[in-house]
Amino acid sequence: MESWRDIGERSDFPLENLPYGAFRAHGGAVHLGVAVGEDVLDLAAVAQAGLIDDICERELLEAASLNPFLAAGPDCWTAVRERLTALLQLGGDARLRAANVDRFFVRQREIDMVLPAEIGDYVDFYSSIEHATNLGRMFRPDGEALMPNWRHLPIGYHGRASTVVIDGTPIVRPRGQRKPPQAALPTFGPSARLDIELEVGFIAGPGNAMGEPIAIADAREHIFGLVLVNDWSARDIQAWEYQLLGPFLGKSFATTISPWIVTLDALEPCRMAGPQQVPQPLPYLQTRDEWAYDIALAVDVQSQTMRERGIAPQTISRTTFAGMYWNMAQQLAHATSNGTAIRPGDLYASGTISGSTPDSLGSFIEMTWNGERPIELASGERRAFLEDGDEIALRGWCERGGSRIGFGAARGMILPAR
Amino acid sequence: MESWRDIGERSDFPLENLPYGAFRAHGGAVHLGVAVGEDVLDLAAVAQAGLIDDICERELLEAASLNPFLAAGPDCWTAVRERLTALLQLGGDARLRAANVDRFFVRQREIDMVLPAEIGDYVDFYSSIEHATNLGRMFRPDGEALMPNWRHLPIGYHGRASTVVIDGTPIVRPRGQRKPPQAALPTFGPSARLDIELEVGFIAGPGNAMGEPIAIADAREHIFGLVLVNDWSARDIQAWEYQLLGPFLGKSFATTISPWIVTLDALEPCRMAGPQQVPQPLPYLQTRDEWAYDIALAVDVQSQTMRERGIAPQTISRTTFAGMYWNMAQQLAHATSNGTAIRPGDLYASGTISGSTPDSLGSFIEMTWNGERPIELASGERRAFLEDGDEIALRGWCERGGSRIGFGAARGMILPAR
Repeated sequence: MESWRDIGERSDFPLENLPYGAFRAHGGAVHLGVAVGEDVLDLAAVAQAGLIDDICERELLEAASLNPFLAAGPDCWTAVRERLTALLQLGGDARLRAANVDRFFVRQREIDMVLPAEIGDYVDFYSSIEHATNLGRMFRPDGEALMPNWRHLPIGYHGRASTVVIDGTPIVRPRGQRKPPQAALPTFGPSARLDIELEVGFIAGPGNAMGEPIAIADAREHIFGLVLVNDWSARDIQAWEYQLLGPFLGKSFATTISPWIVTLDALEPCRMAGPQQVPQPLPYLQTRDEWAYDIALAVDVQSQTMRERGIAPQTISRTTFAGMYWNMAQQLAHATSNGTAIRPGDLYASGTISGSTPDSLGSFIEMTWNGERPIELASGERRAFLEDGDEIALRGWCERGGSRIGFGAARGMILPAR
Repeated sequence: MESWRDIGERSDFPLENLPYGAFRAHGGAVHLGVAVGEDVLDLAAVAQAGLIDDICERELLEAASLNPFLAAGPDCWTAVRERLTALLQLGGDARLRAANVDRFFVRQREIDMVLPAEIGDYVDFYSSIEHATNLGRMFRPDGEALMPNWRHLPIGYHGRASTVVIDGTPIVRPRGQRKPPQAALPTFGPSARLDIELEVGFIAGPGNAMGEPIAIADAREHIFGLVLVNDWSARDIQAWEYQLLGPFLGKSFATTISPWIVTLDALEPCRMAGPQQVPQPLPYLQTRDEWAYDIALAVDVQSQTMRERGIAPQTISRTTFAGMYWNMAQQLAHATSNGTAIRPGDLYASGTISGSTPDSLGSFIEMTWNGERPIELASGERRAFLEDGDEIALRGWCERGGSRIGFGAARGMILPAR
């Protein structure tokens, strides 16, 4: 599908993508936008021009966050997507062309992206069997790698909503309490085992009333789209605190998401069958629909030294989202099975995405096997865990039929502890 | 201190209390209010009458939630409290008396209370050593009752913000996945081990920027006041899911809070020294200030049968908040020690509050020792865990110098699973 706009051939954001975000241009008010090539279509301007009046309320796109649009539901999402496609494609409807949409674009490099939605609750799952198996082998070498419940339900926990930040936000190295196994007493100080977690998360809407679960067959109506997620983790803090109530300060200091929400509609060509589940899950987690998405993922690292020497970011891992054991529909059905209310804008992250080979792991703790086998950087440096000045970029994309549905990046640079 | 208003002698809400809440009268807009005896002083009306113009912005009290007021900080909180006291006390300032504040009262029984603040993040601690010891003895009879980390840091986890509900909200029995130890496979169905947790929580404000911890010496400036919290728990769901990432669906279906936030200023007469901590905590958790609050707590239950036979609610537990091992200042300093951002309105709950005697326990799982010793109700019924139709009321108050600083109640009735 061709646009009358000039969109680079390798862009993450062709006409087939149209991901949603929120931005501030020249210090002005926050507007919603859709990425198109290197530009952003200002949705507030589109709405103010009356171009969606026959589809939905202007207010949905004139808001300062996507929450009202997320609440509006899938019919509205699809109708707006179709309208934007019609406005942007080459040789489209003459009346729409006359709207002169060209006026409503701004350059991505001239704006600041902000969080696309207010995130009420953030849940993090643990849905890669390769990741869960790796950690089980590492920390319980004499037992079963997977806990007895793991194959029966998508394990998850609540994370911190207040520290979900957008691509590019610097990450201050957390301080915290930790006790190495051989030490007699805990100490307090900067984390010495700062890690990443490569994840993909979904943004929810419209959600359910408390007490009324979302059936797995209806999950599609409550999942708007996906973002990349870096669930930064301080392994030393986490190891000391997690018994018995799970992760808390080892995770809560920061979680980075990519700025553009790529819709399920855009990702439809990348949808495929996921891995077989053995044993078959309980009926409330069963679906015949295909819920895996073939999203290629990469982790890039660039150290301070690399930056200073002009050495480009180095890709240290490549994997795919397609192999996740538990899928998003199962996660959503499980999370609401007890009547928990979902609100528009809620973030549900997959858990660390690891493949089955050493070059496809989603965390340093796996890549370096608990720090024992440091990674060699192109600068000659070695990394067991993250050092100050390291910048991590998560990237994701799906390629189908010559077009690339991309996510952009979720980047963050480590600043020294304060 | 006497008021010109008629306040019942045993009221939870004398002039010394002045707790904050939010209400809707006759289906109208949400207003902020302060409880006085059996009435509520409408703060929007007070602000609109110009009675706080010399102290702070009217908008803080005209809002539909306390969040802006919480963000304003302790100087504003204290100034408004002093002004309200001056407006209400007998023989106060003649100019203020002329304001004719009597016009601004509504009857509590004629209004609907709503959540006093938008809760961005909800954290639940585990800070009663009696409770943690009881559960340790119950589930790990052959090991140490307390985990090795327990005396070094206030263990906590993130709960679900979307399902924090106000006093009186019915609680639908959650369904979920559970597997009794002797069963081969898990099943899905209504929780058979539905429980309460008697807790006290603090509401935060104004909070910190991400990356900038709140020192324990500054905790007072970020704790507005307290509410009663019932952290409803499905023990069967929790037991099967919690490894390795902690509580999730066993807790996320509902958390009830009392409607009035009782301020630290009001509770000042009830402040006292807490228990000695051994070993001494690390410096970031050390404080010489007294941070325990002598709040008496009670748990009442009334079954459907009791209601039908006109049998009054039965008090099944009485305890005090004063004995908590970890205090609120330590909880807040710990929770932000890694740079986590606190936002106005965040809820931090204490964890189940249990005393050292059998009649002072904060959960059924402790009172009935994992269901083995059911409670006898006045109706002749027995309870291992909650049955449909049971109503639980948590109550809390502090009595000092003849005045009672009360919390009202946090009530919830169990409805059958859907």
